[in-house]
Amino acid sequence: MTISFEVTGNDTRSGARLGLLTTPHGTIKTPVFMPVGTQASVKTMTPEEVQEVGGTMILGNTYHLYLRPGHEIVAEAGGLHNFMNWPGPILTDSGGFQVFSLGPLRKITDQGVTFRSHIDGSEHFFSPEKAMEIQMALGADVVMAFDECAPYPCSYDEARAATERTTRWAERCLNRHDRKDQALFGIIQGGTYRDLRLKSASEITSLGFPGFGIGGLSVGEPKPVMYEVLDYLVPEMPWNKPRYLMGVGSPDCLLEGVSRGVDMFDCVLPTRIARNGTVFTRDGKLVVRNAEYARDFRPLDPDCDCYTCKNYSRAYIRHLIKANEVLGIRLTTLHNLRFVLRLMEDIRAAIANGDFVEYKDRFLQRFNAE
Amino acid sequence: MTISFEVTGNDTRSGARLGLLTTPHGTIKTPVFMPVGTQASVKTMTPEEVQEVGGTMILGNTYHLYLRPGHEIVAEAGGLHNFMNWPGPILTDSGGFQVFSLGPLRKITDQGVTFRSHIDGSEHFFSPEKAMEIQMALGADVVMAFDECAPYPCSYDEARAATERTTRWAERCLNRHDRKDQALFGIIQGGTYRDLRLKSASEITSLGFPGFGIGGLSVGEPKPVMYEVLDYLVPEMPWNKPRYLMGVGSPDCLLEGVSRGVDMFDCVLPTRIARNGTVFTRDGKLVVRNAEYARDFRPLDPDCDCYTCKNYSRAYIRHLIKANEVLGIRLTTLHNLRFVLRLMEDIRAAIANGDFVEYKDRFLQRFNAE
Repeated sequence: MTISFEVTGNDTRSGARLGLLTTPHGTIKTPVFMPVGTQASVKTMTPEEVQEVGGTMILGNTYHLYLRPGHEIVAEAGGLHNFMNWPGPILTDSGGFQVFSLGPLRKITDQGVTFRSHIDGSEHFFSPEKAMEIQMALGADVVMAFDECAPYPCSYDEARAATERTTRWAERCLNRHDRKDQALFGIIQGGTYRDLRLKSASEITSLGFPGFGIGGLSVGEPKPVMYEVLDYLVPEMPWNKPRYLMGVGSPDCLLEGVSRGVDMFDCVLPTRIARNGTVFTRDGKLVVRNAEYARDFRPLDPDCDCYTCKNYSRAYIRHLIKANEVLGIRLTTLHNLRFVLRLMEDIRAAIANGDFVEYKDRFLQRFNAE
Repeated sequence: MTISFEVTGNDTRSGARLGLLTTPHGTIKTPVFMPVGTQASVKTMTPEEVQEVGGTMILGNTYHLYLRPGHEIVAEAGGLHNFMNWPGPILTDSGGFQVFSLGPLRKITDQGVTFRSHIDGSEHFFSPEKAMEIQMALGADVVMAFDECAPYPCSYDEARAATERTTRWAERCLNRHDRKDQALFGIIQGGTYRDLRLKSASEITSLGFPGFGIGGLSVGEPKPVMYEVLDYLVPEMPWNKPRYLMGVGSPDCLLEGVSRGVDMFDCVLPTRIARNGTVFTRDGKLVVRNAEYARDFRPLDPDCDCYTCKNYSRAYIRHLIKANEVLGIRLTTLHNLRFVLRLMEDIRAAIANGDFVEYKDRFLQRFNAE
């Protein structure tokens, strides 16, 4: 087995648990939030900066890297780690979610998905086999099965068809994947239908993957609906394997996900809103580009220990963002990532201390107060 | 005197010299290249990164900071050093060059210049007095007199009028400037007319400024014309005061300027071309965004000691720039600034060793070979 996962502790009053995920590029602590490096870069940041704010494992996007620079070039560079100079573990998605998101630009059959590049309109084809070949070339530590992610809302029949196809494709991924130094995770689909979720969980987990993604959530459904799915799904998943809730990363969802037994998360939200001039604080979101901060010489978040908050004022950061200075979005990105990664550190400490439930309530009360 | 300048050595076979410029924010070695932080940020970089590549003194632009965020806000923040967290010396220009560059958007009289903001079209007025007030609010260590920079080409009568006005305005700047912790430099104009340059030098230096800018060069004239002006102008400038060639920063011009006795330089060129995907190497410029570098896994410049060259390939940097990833222009900017600042370090070492002339010839032969 190329990766191993060990549950090292668990909260007796919630589903929260602590773990260690060991990969060819090191061992990381879970629950973990993985910053997203879509195009072989966590936007605006160097690898050293990602590590300084507490990043341990990052995500790369197969769809984007396949189109640009091309997986062959990444392979020639010695793989994604070498290409982008990231020393820790990497997970790549399968490209499925991105190509399904292309809407009218794509066509799905059981064989695979035909789609047009968002860059130049050229036509391409992804199949389970192709998704494995690309991910083997990229060389991440963890790669994901090629699945069909049903939209929300979605009829029962549509959700069932996507779920069944996801199982067939999972088998084809297993057959094609043969790189011994990377782990292939299966993905559970089923939309927001309980029986489909449980059927998918049963089928996918029976295939013997070393870890599992929970796909098809955070795609537009209300948060309580997502939490409800997690409530009945996660207990059906193997205890001794990592559970990865794909595309989720707002502070409240991280807490609710951990509380239900999720070990891994990724999301562009913290970095995306940062580039738009919105930052997290203990008291909720703050739109630092707003005029009210023009003369506010306090840090973004007085409780934060990041480089941005130790050195710069809201007034300066607002100025940089209004003036389109790159340093502005560097500083907000760094802060937001630190905020989320520190939240994960605090969550792990709280689980270890046995007061995760109290920590979660306290955090959410303050964060949601405004 | 708020600043002091000491010539600590000079080359016997050229005009090159070594010096120490002492300011309220530290002593720096000359000849010096000042990275440009137009809008209170050296584009894409943190202050720490500017220092890591060898930056000691930076430049801020009065026109830009007046418009955004406004000099009052910078003053409220405790001045430009505090606002942007730069611990070393800062020089601000007078805004003159920028408002003259606005072309049809500005109108000049002896009283001052009326111009429209490039941001929102609002009307503003700069006079010598106003330029002093803004620069006093910004709080740089060195501030520049408000001058009239004649364009190139320019008739003799136009150049003479601008030169005479520059002298009248220099006196008004001296009368208005009263901040004891900053030094006001005069600016010598005169276009490319020898008698006007010498007249301006005589008039401006007689006013007793602690340092002098050479304005109106690198505004479109051929480089040999600029070198010729320096040949006859610099020897007329006081030996014991810093000489600042404004807006010049290509490697060849830095060497030729130092060779003629210039102590200080600034220019957006290294950082601007970096953002466009062009980098300096010992063998000349390299357009890393070009397709030929898609599979080139060598560093930008194998002889470079910068973070970029120690960690990343041309292929990766090309990918980042093609994909509009901010890290790409961070890496090229950092490299180009290091290239120019290391050139200045090497120049200073060569002057000290007595082989500046040989160093200059060797550098230019290789740099210009391609």
